[in-house]
Amino acid sequence: MRIDWRRNNSLTSFFYKCESCDLHSELSIEDFLDQKLQKILKVKGEKLNNALISGNIKFHESRGFPALQFRKDVGTIESGTVVYLGKKIEVVRGFPKIRRTLILSPALENHFNDKVAVEEKMNGYNVRIASIDNQIFAFTRGGYVCPFTTKKALELMDLTSFFKENPNLVLCGEMVGTENPYVSHHYPEIGKLGFKIFDIREKISNKPLTINEKFDLIEKYNLPPVTLFGVFKADQVAMEVKKIIKNIGKEGREGVVIKDLEMEEMPLKYTASQAHDREIKYAFKYPFDFGRAFFFSRVIREGFQAFEMNESEEELKKRAQRLGESILMPMVKTISCVSNDNPAAEDLVIEVNSKEEADEFVRFIHDLGVNATLLKFEDGKATIRRIHQSTTDKISNYLKGGLY
Amino acid sequence: MRIDWRRNNSLTSFFYKCESCDLHSELSIEDFLDQKLQKILKVKGEKLNNALISGNIKFHESRGFPALQFRKDVGTIESGTVVYLGKKIEVVRGFPKIRRTLILSPALENHFNDKVAVEEKMNGYNVRIASIDNQIFAFTRGGYVCPFTTKKALELMDLTSFFKENPNLVLCGEMVGTENPYVSHHYPEIGKLGFKIFDIREKISNKPLTINEKFDLIEKYNLPPVTLFGVFKADQVAMEVKKIIKNIGKEGREGVVIKDLEMEEMPLKYTASQAHDREIKYAFKYPFDFGRAFFFSRVIREGFQAFEMNESEEELKKRAQRLGESILMPMVKTISCVSNDNPAAEDLVIEVNSKEEADEFVRFIHDLGVNATLLKFEDGKATIRRIHQSTTDKISNYLKGGLY
Repeated sequence: MRIDWRRNNSLTSFFYKCESCDLHSELSIEDFLDQKLQKILKVKGEKLNNALISGNIKFHESRGFPALQFRKDVGTIESGTVVYLGKKIEVVRGFPKIRRTLILSPALENHFNDKVAVEEKMNGYNVRIASIDNQIFAFTRGGYVCPFTTKKALELMDLTSFFKENPNLVLCGEMVGTENPYVSHHYPEIGKLGFKIFDIREKISNKPLTINEKFDLIEKYNLPPVTLFGVFKADQVAMEVKKIIKNIGKEGREGVVIKDLEMEEMPLKYTASQAHDREIKYAFKYPFDFGRAFFFSRVIREGFQAFEMNESEEELKKRAQRLGESILMPMVKTISCVSNDNPAAEDLVIEVNSKEEADEFVRFIHDLGVNATLLKFEDGKATIRRIHQSTTDKISNYLKGGLY
Repeated sequence: MRIDWRRNNSLTSFFYKCESCDLHSELSIEDFLDQKLQKILKVKGEKLNNALISGNIKFHESRGFPALQFRKDVGTIESGTVVYLGKKIEVVRGFPKIRRTLILSPALENHFNDKVAVEEKMNGYNVRIASIDNQIFAFTRGGYVCPFTTKKALELMDLTSFFKENPNLVLCGEMVGTENPYVSHHYPEIGKLGFKIFDIREKISNKPLTINEKFDLIEKYNLPPVTLFGVFKADQVAMEVKKIIKNIGKEGREGVVIKDLEMEEMPLKYTASQAHDREIKYAFKYPFDFGRAFFFSRVIREGFQAFEMNESEEELKKRAQRLGESILMPMVKTISCVSNDNPAAEDLVIEVNSKEEADEFVRFIHDLGVNATLLKFEDGKATIRRIHQSTTDKISNYLKGGLY
């Protein structure tokens, strides 16, 4: 049986075509959710239907890839989950939100029982790679197939044999480097673009492989893992992470994820002060687009970290200076920029093979609601300008005397 | 005709007693709003009724003072408005929100046409004083009759002849000083407690007197006004305020309100950097009670002020250091305090004549939802401990390893 899908205005019908009997029949969405999807996802058909009505699940098609995309958590199914409506129904679950701890001790010894792995948390963007209908796709966190990421992932790694032999697995990792359209960060060992794997999970169930199983596959298929800082006993790991986090902070790196070796406990993340500042800087470069949402949690992290690190007056003052400058300097710079009639914008550079490829990518992020234009294409590099409209408009209004 | 009022569970009836005929009759609230209040407030009865149902208008009684209290704006009627249901219906309108400008020029020359007065904006709490049924009451911003403020206002000023001759006017001002239960701030010329008037307005209409009319009455009745820094032409005031704000900032004072002499344009406020920092400090002393809501707008003010003041790299760095310390230091201190099993609390001292008076005040703020207890009463001074529960609970949870 092959399922085609057809969207009509009220989203009430699917079009089924059974390949054996060649019989056409219409099936209402309610029946599809109830008879098919409920069994696969183990979420009540009614709940799925409500999510569809409220827009928490959306129909989505790109590159001949018809799918249901979960915009929010629905029951136990994570946002970012994609249900592929192809020859057979395939489910790539959303990457689960990793909880954060504000202090290392006693959080880590309380949370974990046995041995834990400390892996690097890199500053890039979360990508899941899966094979669907023998085609390999790279999904962004939200569950979109990103054309840029899909193409680059396949150039960076040879994934053919992995997915041929493991069609049921999903590679979860971070796309990093300076030349990507989402999060540009310089890692000396990466340069322009690289991909690092941190989890391997099962389709449908989202069950992660254990740390050992993961590294076995990574070795077997010659895949690139994120750095493993070490394996520690649960009651000693807080001390170790304190040392690790100070070092990677100084190197301008982001943080760590602490994982139960069996992957039975929920992993936890912890990040360096410098990473908080970097994010605050970005947020206050575009304060009316990101400032409010970004700020509070990052400042809270700084407070707890300063407390736990038991910092001297001198160290605290330095942390405060960094924090204050991360807020103020980018904001003043952007106000000054807008006062000269320029928009609050950032230019992203990506490597592409053709202007068409650049155009396709700009269309893709445009459809996601990003205000972006292709500034230039030259020597295989596309410069994409992303305009932060709210920041541009509000600053411009306040500078003209608009009231707050 | 005298209106008594009676609250029943469904808030559906008033009890009217006509003094001439001694006849009792019940009037539904809908009819009361429609037949009486709509005419007085010039807001549709239906709108008033909806506000009552949704809780934006509440019945409220304290000290034999039955009233409708506006919790939110309803049509043109400001939140904080009180409708007294006494022998006659009296309306004390809420103090209107004063809009803020983020930059001085060209905001001030654009907004004002003619001459403007620059008055001091003090750091205390907003109070309206009005005579109702020949009794003088002091209302907080929200529209509560505060027993402490009422008593102190009458001790600080002789208001008898003013209200005898002007029962139709409302004195609007700031209660300031170190010994008050709301906003403690040291002003050298004030000391423990003082009251400063900035507006005189009409009951019901909320129309403000012009600056000249206001100062005539202030002089006639020997009332205490806030400082008038001067009267300037609209196109020169930005430059003047820049100078004034730098000085009052250095003196640890708050800011200014710029007012059209005729009070026909909306007044505007502008505050000093030090005042922003002071508020941020307070917010991050109790981050999970105030941090998120307080922070963003104050930081935005700093950004625009730094830009307009055209600060050097050195000055910017100093401003950033102050800002960063205002965020980080109080937070680390409070985390440390909670880690020693103390609550995140502040102790307020007020002068009262008796323990009963202190108890009454604690009951009053308790009813407003403030977690406060009388710590001690000694030598006419009551120490009231206000506990910030959300901050205490959350920090305590995170310190035990609770996840963020």
